[in-house]
Amino acid sequence: MTKIVDDPETFASAALAGFARVYGRHVRLVKGGVVRSTAVPAGKVSVVVGGGSGHYPAFAGYVGPGMADAAVAGEIFASPSTAAVARVCRNAHHGGGILLGFGNYAGDVLNFGVAAERLRAEGIDVRILTVTDDVASAPADQHLKRRGIAGDFVVFKVAGAAAEAGLSLDAVERVTRRANARTFSFGVAFGGCTLPGSTEPLFTVPKGTMALGLGIHGEPGIREMDIVPAGELARLLSETVLAERPAGARRAAVLLNGLGATKYEELFVLWGAIADRLEAAGVDLVAPEVGEYVTSLDMQGCSLTVLWLDEELEGLWLAPCDTPVFRRGEAFRTEPAPVRDGAEDEAPAYGPASDASREGARCLAGILGAVVAALGEAEAELGRIDALAGDGDHGQGMRRGAMAAREAIDDAVARGAGARSALAAAGDAWADRAGGTSGAIWGLLLRSWSSAFSDETAFGDADVVRGARAALDDVMRLGGARPGDKTLVDAFVPFVEALEAAAGGGRSLQEAWRQASDVCEAAARATAPLTPKLGRARPLAERSIGHPDAGAVSLALIAQTIAGRL
Amino acid sequence: MTKIVDDPETFASAALAGFARVYGRHVRLVKGGVVRSTAVPAGKVSVVVGGGSGHYPAFAGYVGPGMADAAVAGEIFASPSTAAVARVCRNAHHGGGILLGFGNYAGDVLNFGVAAERLRAEGIDVRILTVTDDVASAPADQHLKRRGIAGDFVVFKVAGAAAEAGLSLDAVERVTRRANARTFSFGVAFGGCTLPGSTEPLFTVPKGTMALGLGIHGEPGIREMDIVPAGELARLLSETVLAERPAGARRAAVLLNGLGATKYEELFVLWGAIADRLEAAGVDLVAPEVGEYVTSLDMQGCSLTVLWLDEELEGLWLAPCDTPVFRRGEAFRTEPAPVRDGAEDEAPAYGPASDASREGARCLAGILGAVVAALGEAEAELGRIDALAGDGDHGQGMRRGAMAAREAIDDAVARGAGARSALAAAGDAWADRAGGTSGAIWGLLLRSWSSAFSDETAFGDADVVRGARAALDDVMRLGGARPGDKTLVDAFVPFVEALEAAAGGGRSLQEAWRQASDVCEAAARATAPLTPKLGRARPLAERSIGHPDAGAVSLALIAQTIAGRL
Repeated sequence: MTKIVDDPETFASAALAGFARVYGRHVRLVKGGVVRSTAVPAGKVSVVVGGGSGHYPAFAGYVGPGMADAAVAGEIFASPSTAAVARVCRNAHHGGGILLGFGNYAGDVLNFGVAAERLRAEGIDVRILTVTDDVASAPADQHLKRRGIAGDFVVFKVAGAAAEAGLSLDAVERVTRRANARTFSFGVAFGGCTLPGSTEPLFTVPKGTMALGLGIHGEPGIREMDIVPAGELARLLSETVLAERPAGARRAAVLLNGLGATKYEELFVLWGAIADRLEAAGVDLVAPEVGEYVTSLDMQGCSLTVLWLDEELEGLWLAPCDTPVFRRGEAFRTEPAPVRDGAEDEAPAYGPASDASREGARCLAGILGAVVAALGEAEAELGRIDALAGDGDHGQGMRRGAMAAREAIDDAVARGAGARSALAAAGDAWADRAGGTSGAIWGLLLRSWSSAFSDETAFGDADVVRGARAALDDVMRLGGARPGDKTLVDAFVPFVEALEAAAGGGRSLQEAWRQASDVCEAAARATAPLTPKLGRARPLAERSIGHPDAGAVSLALIAQTIAGRL
Repeated sequence: MTKIVDDPETFASAALAGFARVYGRHVRLVKGGVVRSTAVPAGKVSVVVGGGSGHYPAFAGYVGPGMADAAVAGEIFASPSTAAVARVCRNAHHGGGILLGFGNYAGDVLNFGVAAERLRAEGIDVRILTVTDDVASAPADQHLKRRGIAGDFVVFKVAGAAAEAGLSLDAVERVTRRANARTFSFGVAFGGCTLPGSTEPLFTVPKGTMALGLGIHGEPGIREMDIVPAGELARLLSETVLAERPAGARRAAVLLNGLGATKYEELFVLWGAIADRLEAAGVDLVAPEVGEYVTSLDMQGCSLTVLWLDEELEGLWLAPCDTPVFRRGEAFRTEPAPVRDGAEDEAPAYGPASDASREGARCLAGILGAVVAALGEAEAELGRIDALAGDGDHGQGMRRGAMAAREAIDDAVARGAGARSALAAAGDAWADRAGGTSGAIWGLLLRSWSSAFSDETAFGDADVVRGARAALDDVMRLGGARPGDKTLVDAFVPFVEALEAAAGGGRSLQEAWRQASDVCEAAARATAPLTPKLGRARPLAERSIGHPDAGAVSLALIAQTIAGRL
């Protein structure tokens, strides 16, 4: 149970700052993450990893020669914002492109994915590597749908070694994907962790039992069984992981990982039995690791990870590295990195813009002001709707995001930005400050919409309609939600279709928008079926049936607010 | 809570074996501990550390170039046996003598101390270094009475670096003593750990409170207070440790240590505030460490350790090292150590012995056989007496120890050993197999007694009496108990005095022994006052008033048994 806290709100950032203070030899703190404090050869591929906090040494403890160039850290168990990912990546880029590695979770997929798009737009070649090692989370034929758990460590080790060896981005991406495809983990939980500021664990496992197939964010597992002796647990873990052994695979990097409160002596007892079983199955254990590599605060449990090696992977697994928590082989000769003056906090530079486009930016700023006012009034109601299915912070997040967006667009307008740049800046600010999935979605929505505008010319009605379609496409492509998943998409699709139809039918933007907003509102309300429908694909959807979706309601509210301003 | 167990009885040894299997590059398993698996220069001082298990990475995780040469591991939170310490030391000796380092606990002081005497008798120069860093356990003017907690790590780091640098045993001892004298720790506990096989923690701290002055064997602390925010906890720890800052001390090695279930992010949050406070107090932080270095299974808590550096200590603190858990500076070029064939399990070699002395050994073996029989009959009764004050395993331990001693002496007799060697072997076997303090005491008692005998000549009555005195002196000197402490000493002192008086007065050994045994039995029974006497110096004595002491009763039983055989 987390006992050492000043303010739960700032716990994750305080922990990261304290970490950077101990390991200044390895890392330098930037906003939202850490980058290597040692010089890196120009042109080297950068490996940037990350995810929520609470998993130390994942991910900041992996930064150093031979492994990661930087780590992005969100709040406890929450994805870092798109802006944080992008910011840390810019600080960690050395001209060779970036491999962006993270575990497969919706929030991370969204934020890292959007950040990658943004960085690509800036001319940085970014590849995405999503770790999918947890065999409990999807069947063998859907490997890429699995969650990432302790496999993060072995996959990132391979990626870091490949980049350190001077491989091209293509080659680093290729070998890391192969590593991920050959990495399999399975774990058990004996008890849940307690978040900073909470007094109760995220979950409990009934006394004398354990949960199979743990997650690392307080997910308890997929089924429970009675606790078994260490030898039997070794059998269970080994057999489950061995079940997906590729044909001919013999040599393996193996990691027995403790989640935080299952301690070293227990892991060593278990390791003896696991090593026996793996060796009996003809596995050659190559530099195995036993310890805490991906934790979940003070969660009780452990997992077994096997990365099946080939010759290239074995060389990379064994290659030297020197990070705060993991050192292998020869020492690296490092020098402090040159200071990048102000690389982090410099104000955005806006390119030249026409008067007409600046006028458009001012108009958009006015609209965002109205949205802030409307969301402020609706905050409590949105929170109430959200609390029926989620954690009730949707109204707060929307208001905070919209306020950040308005501040950003006001600043952009004051500094002469055109409509396209100003709206993009507003989106980035929303994503950075609101947090959570809805913050990322709204940041993406505004930035994508802005792509239909220009800084040279005024935007016309058709540009607005095109922007709506671009925003919808990106939200669906990067967010991954489909109509019927009970998200904002359920209201956004009919909105855009209605807008396009009305505008295509010759209506004015004002009238088309008004019609589309009414359709949108009706669709948002209709996300609440009167009777529960079971058997949907997404667990979240199952939890939230029976009332409207807060994200869809927010969208309708904003659409109606804008309709009143046009 | 410990959940991964096969058999609680073998938990510690299974954990050590599993550890050695992961870290074969660093260590080789020997019975009762691990030694470096890499070659060590001949003549280098060996640093051997140890204590109970359950503290990983203390102590096995410290073995490697630049730090320890070997680690001895007892059962969970229990001192290793004298024989284990001696055995591991023999495996780790490279001709330069041994610095034997351990935390200041009665069982360790006894077992390591007796082992040191035994090794010295074999011609190995051994120095004892007891770590005494815990400021909560004794006042500043009694530094050497303090317990050893996380200070173990920093003191052993200094010792290992000094030995690696090629310093003489004198010099290693001197600088390590200075390091210990300049090391101060203070900790807090939020909750107790759970022993393997138990379902309840060793102690609990009331919800919302913390215990100040923790121990690392499940000792909860010296007083409780409400949990404070991280910043306030930083103040409490820093000010307590700074209170004993030596005049002029400015540069310090600092360790913020987690006990097991107080996790990394919490430690980093705390570290930020501690670093602020120490820097504000003018302390230069030299390569500080934050993490798990001396744990107590899954105990919740942390401690702050400061080692005040001078120039020599700073060089040693910063010197390279490469252990399973702690690596600093340049890599070491190591080669596998040559295999010491059978160094561990070879049967004891007995020197030549006269027929007369062999006859004496046979006689002693017969007596030990009678002792085993008597202890077997009395096992339950001894356990019952012990359970009134202790954990009730005294009878079991005495029987196990005596059986091991009889097996050893039978083996020695069969291989032609003289009386002195045979009795010494019996003592060693007793200490090695019985465990606990009483096992160590009985092993010491027999071995010391044997010193009055010889392998060349038969022993006479006077030798037996001299042996009794030697045994008593060693038990008091190394065991540290005084008459009135309610231990075996309360019965042993009157026994030896009566034996000496009667023998000096011209009685036969048979008669003198009989008289002394009666005195002994009366004294043992008298360890049970009819009314409690409070205010004794030793807490254990306070707990055990009101019934006879099991150790004294055992002694009397054995004395009477022998009386019947003479």
